[in-house]
Amino acid sequence: MVAPWTLKEVRQVVSFRIGALVHLRGRSPRTNETHDFYELRFPDWVNVVPVTPDGRVLLIRQFRAGSRELTLEIPGGLMEPGETPLESARRELLEETGYDTDDWRMLGNVRPNPAIQGNRCHTLLARNVKPVAEQRLEPAEDIDVVPTPLEEVPGMIESGAIDHTLVLSAFLRLWLAGGAAGALASASRPGAAARPRSGER
Amino acid sequence: MVAPWTLKEVRQVVSFRIGALVHLRGRSPRTNETHDFYELRFPDWVNVVPVTPDGRVLLIRQFRAGSRELTLEIPGGLMEPGETPLESARRELLEETGYDTDDWRMLGNVRPNPAIQGNRCHTLLARNVKPVAEQRLEPAEDIDVVPTPLEEVPGMIESGAIDHTLVLSAFLRLWLAGGAAGALASASRPGAAARPRSGER
Repeated sequence: MVAPWTLKEVRQVVSFRIGALVHLRGRSPRTNETHDFYELRFPDWVNVVPVTPDGRVLLIRQFRAGSRELTLEIPGGLMEPGETPLESARRELLEETGYDTDDWRMLGNVRPNPAIQGNRCHTLLARNVKPVAEQRLEPAEDIDVVPTPLEEVPGMIESGAIDHTLVLSAFLRLWLAGGAAGALASASRPGAAARPRSGER
Repeated sequence: MVAPWTLKEVRQVVSFRIGALVHLRGRSPRTNETHDFYELRFPDWVNVVPVTPDGRVLLIRQFRAGSRELTLEIPGGLMEPGETPLESARRELLEETGYDTDDWRMLGNVRPNPAIQGNRCHTLLARNVKPVAEQRLEPAEDIDVVPTPLEEVPGMIESGAIDHTLVLSAFLRLWLAGGAAGALASASRPGAAARPRSGER
């Protein structure tokens, strides 16, 4: 039976504007030996599924320095000190797209990578979003807004056109909130993955 | 219309066993100004959805240093140099659970975080897995194998019992491969998220 370890912070190795690398040491409850770990310490993140009155989700196309590619994602970013997830989400939506709404719903949160990060990414649904302002991009941002029919998203994930894991998780939470759990349980049955693709799409 | 940036590597800030932090600099095609970025450079990762002949997925419970929690995940880890995704997945499955199979299928890959990472996480489905050996845990690993009926997974994600984003993405790819795209498109329709939960579960 696994048990939690007790970890101590040895030192902060380096801070790099959006996060910090921290060196930890702990003792294994199984072997009683000490081991070193590295933690990437970030603030919590948020992302938003913004849906227009006519059922389009506002995807954003932007250049990403990590992958060196243009990606299709949803709006989001780092929470600033003192902000609630709703405040961060609303700010990021407005900055990155110029859209706003009063119709917000929390869809839940995920851990981006519990092996090496302690933070969470909170996902919110924003319905009836409408353009109210110009984008206010940060100097290193460069973003196109791409309104896309929501029902096209499953196929875009299947094809790899959308491949950011935090964006996949956000849509999965949306679909679970929309009552998809039963259908997903059916798709989990033995042999389902071997079935020919259904003709529903 | 967004355009790709050209990035140059300034220096490797620090290497920390499982990855490295790299300082990049690029020029904005929009403003023509230079900006600094930080990249976390990791090898590609793999994860596995291992399913037993009676339809259970092998979840693993382990302590995670980043979140300082016991988590429920699927087996996976870092690809070693020269390995294919299948070789890495089979090795991680055997090491972490003692289970093996010859029945493998690639489900696709995701980007863990294209903003700051260039790597991918490859997901494989392993069917008809059977116990063939003892676990071979690394010194800092401590893992319980938790066979779980696959149809319980959507509810475990909904409740937050499973919350690692790469695990959510792996199951989403499994369900898409099982023909769930049509049902997910239905759950995307305007108003779906406001409907009462269906009675299917």
